[in-house]
Amino acid sequence: MLMKSSTQSLTEQLSARFAERIRNRLMAPGARLPSVRQCAQQHGVSPSTVVAAYDQLLAQGLVEARKNRGFFVRESGRVVDAPDGDPDTRARPDDLALESAAANWSTAHWFAARAAGRAGPGVSPVNATALIRGMFHKISDKPQPGMGVFPPDWLESTFMPAAVRKVTNSRALQEFSLQYGEPLGDAGLRRVLAKKLSTLNVHTVPENIITTVGATHALDIVSRTLLRPGDPVMVEEPGWAVEFARLAALGMHILPVPRRADGPDLEVMARYCEVHKPKLYVSVSVFHNPTGYCLSPGSAHRVLQLANQHNFHVVEDDTYSHIAPEHATRLTALDGLQRTIYVSGFAKILAPNWRIGFMAAPPALVEQLLDTKLLATLTTPALLEKALALCIEQGQLRRHAERIRTRLDAARARSVKLALGAGCTFAAEPVGLFGWVETGVDTDALSQRMLDEGYLLAPGALFHAERKPSTLMRINFATTQEAAFWKTFAQVRDEQAR
Amino acid sequence: MLMKSSTQSLTEQLSARFAERIRNRLMAPGARLPSVRQCAQQHGVSPSTVVAAYDQLLAQGLVEARKNRGFFVRESGRVVDAPDGDPDTRARPDDLALESAAANWSTAHWFAARAAGRAGPGVSPVNATALIRGMFHKISDKPQPGMGVFPPDWLESTFMPAAVRKVTNSRALQEFSLQYGEPLGDAGLRRVLAKKLSTLNVHTVPENIITTVGATHALDIVSRTLLRPGDPVMVEEPGWAVEFARLAALGMHILPVPRRADGPDLEVMARYCEVHKPKLYVSVSVFHNPTGYCLSPGSAHRVLQLANQHNFHVVEDDTYSHIAPEHATRLTALDGLQRTIYVSGFAKILAPNWRIGFMAAPPALVEQLLDTKLLATLTTPALLEKALALCIEQGQLRRHAERIRTRLDAARARSVKLALGAGCTFAAEPVGLFGWVETGVDTDALSQRMLDEGYLLAPGALFHAERKPSTLMRINFATTQEAAFWKTFAQVRDEQAR
Repeated sequence: MLMKSSTQSLTEQLSARFAERIRNRLMAPGARLPSVRQCAQQHGVSPSTVVAAYDQLLAQGLVEARKNRGFFVRESGRVVDAPDGDPDTRARPDDLALESAAANWSTAHWFAARAAGRAGPGVSPVNATALIRGMFHKISDKPQPGMGVFPPDWLESTFMPAAVRKVTNSRALQEFSLQYGEPLGDAGLRRVLAKKLSTLNVHTVPENIITTVGATHALDIVSRTLLRPGDPVMVEEPGWAVEFARLAALGMHILPVPRRADGPDLEVMARYCEVHKPKLYVSVSVFHNPTGYCLSPGSAHRVLQLANQHNFHVVEDDTYSHIAPEHATRLTALDGLQRTIYVSGFAKILAPNWRIGFMAAPPALVEQLLDTKLLATLTTPALLEKALALCIEQGQLRRHAERIRTRLDAARARSVKLALGAGCTFAAEPVGLFGWVETGVDTDALSQRMLDEGYLLAPGALFHAERKPSTLMRINFATTQEAAFWKTFAQVRDEQAR
Repeated sequence: MLMKSSTQSLTEQLSARFAERIRNRLMAPGARLPSVRQCAQQHGVSPSTVVAAYDQLLAQGLVEARKNRGFFVRESGRVVDAPDGDPDTRARPDDLALESAAANWSTAHWFAARAAGRAGPGVSPVNATALIRGMFHKISDKPQPGMGVFPPDWLESTFMPAAVRKVTNSRALQEFSLQYGEPLGDAGLRRVLAKKLSTLNVHTVPENIITTVGATHALDIVSRTLLRPGDPVMVEEPGWAVEFARLAALGMHILPVPRRADGPDLEVMARYCEVHKPKLYVSVSVFHNPTGYCLSPGSAHRVLQLANQHNFHVVEDDTYSHIAPEHATRLTALDGLQRTIYVSGFAKILAPNWRIGFMAAPPALVEQLLDTKLLATLTTPALLEKALALCIEQGQLRRHAERIRTRLDAARARSVKLALGAGCTFAAEPVGLFGWVETGVDTDALSQRMLDEGYLLAPGALFHAERKPSTLMRINFATTQEAAFWKTFAQVRDEQAR
């Protein structure tokens, strides 16, 4: 709700709010702004205030008016400024959404469009980096249901700063900071990681481990090393938006494989293998994002059979390993890192900003993967790697993870109860960090409205290779334990469903 | 020289030496090993010892024998193990070198091959990551003439560890490490960098600066954002090996532009523009690597005219800015960051392992570049960025750079004198960190022989887009001040020239 007592006029406040959202990509290029009437209703202002605010956005070049269709977020960047941009590199509006969006700004149309299964006006077909951007922009002081990490206060510890101080004391810092360092990453950390992996039945040696700037960087290195533009690659769907976005940015041919409770849809995979000869399969076996599904041993075996038969590599993203049981089934454990690459990191358990990830690879691939790392970043900062090694060696990480798991179990129980109470259902059994929630309404539209209330949601559409309307959303169990969120959620959803 | 008193036999010592060199890429796949006779002479052992050593390498799968042609480093990795590798992704031996290498292992042939302008036996056509690998592997305790950075003892300081401790004290660490952090990079550092850039007449705001994992990462992000595989890109030649290797790995069409004393060869550039319509020009304007050339204002103006006329972007790699005069001509200063992107880092002045680089970009490109950074690594570690900001703000970096410049001037004077005394000449006026030295012999072969003596050289061939024989080498003035190196150099060169 806008406040009349502010030093800014209501018009300025409203236009500033949209401007910020557009700049932060929470409304993507091509997205349609709410109709004047709708916007006036939502914010409790007069239609003339909305018209004035939209005019300001127009003057700032942030939106454009399309005759009889309303206001749309302007395409920016590449199209305007890049030299002779190849057409398919250009940011595109969601054409389908535009087609189906009718010619007048009426709430009636809004529902018609939604009923037709298409995103309607006011819906932002957020481009693939939107959720990441949301992770970085402080929306409000409220806990954020769409976040992909634990809230900072969950991760707070005294052992991390202590480890950094220990590593930086004495002359040690000089010694390792003043040279580029080891290409594979800090040897001490790699030794510790090899030992840690053996507890997951993934057996490797420090020489086959490469440290990276977070698990994201590891996945990027794998894609760049094993794939060339146009190569077919199988990715689980629903799946993590950043993975789809990266593969798309690299020009890969994405083959979405439906993810079931026990693993990927093997029939679809087999068909892809016959028709497209994919080079790589990207999988989150344990606590799959966004569903929380865990791979069954039988499925794992059959995936690896397919991989052997059709000669593709598998990269297993085990980002959630710290909150998962050690005995969970992992492709890399079954395969013994023959044609599989194990990827993980510490953003979900320790310090997202330390940006430490790693991969364990088949010996025959290590050199190539290392070359890609060198060409992209040369080495990685050893200071933080050494500090992390200390935290693991001294058992602090393990104890910290145990505390987090206990706390998460309690949070999940509360969150599930509140979600069910708010009339939601779970599309997958609630485990791990994320819940995959059926809301009954279009979650793209819901997300935009919830932003007005200070909440960032993760709408289901974000987890698909090709953005399409969804009534699902992903929630973070650590940030949805409060009744206040679910009360607002239920109100906004009911409003939208009316 | 191999030592008979060792616990290893001479055969074992010899095969271990080759094995290490092959594993570290100091001899590349496809490279021919020296002839048995030649090797025996070089190492003062009997031919039968060499034959036994080569047999061990054969048994280890590191080399292969080709009938009547000798022993060659085996192709590894991709060809053998990658699923259905596209032929052109495969590591290839230097076919030309093989063709010209004759059928018997004689020193006579060695010279014939060299005289014909082709690399002969014993010469390792090192692949593009070889020099980087060399930067990381400790060859010996001697100062390394081929290194691209200052020796660690030059960079040693007390202010760096102090800055890290200051940043990690109190609760500050928790606050910024427990979230992903700012996508653009630490705001404090970006403010300091914007101010620092203004002293170079490059005017920008913190919002147009993106921090990266070293300057290498910045160049990688620029390439990935502005180019698509197959796109033509102009790169100075000679130029930095990693840049050629990265662009090649990304599948770009490299157009080498001869670098002259005052700038790129403008006629060649103009012709490329007409024929290929390049998308990007990659330039090291100031203290160009490996020559040390600095761009003239007139050349800069004409390059930018071409860029405007033919609609390409320019990325200016200002890695050596810290040891260069502030008034040096920079394309980004003339252009005002309109179609130019400024890239620099701190590996050459402070702490290579901190891996902090950055770019300043035209406002219209910032969002796209940031998207690429997010997809590749999400954010970068703020801890080190904050520590660096402190070092700059408190003037410590500036004073440190002044000391280094003074010390480098003295080192250069000594080094130049010794080089001339050893019968070398300078192909470019000696300034900055690197000397571009004419040796009169093939420097690929020279490099292999100097490795035996514990010295890593940077042969001229490394600085070309397509590896070709060269009698030039790049020396680091900081590591070539000692008469001992030049004495060994002169001996080995004279031996080779005989």
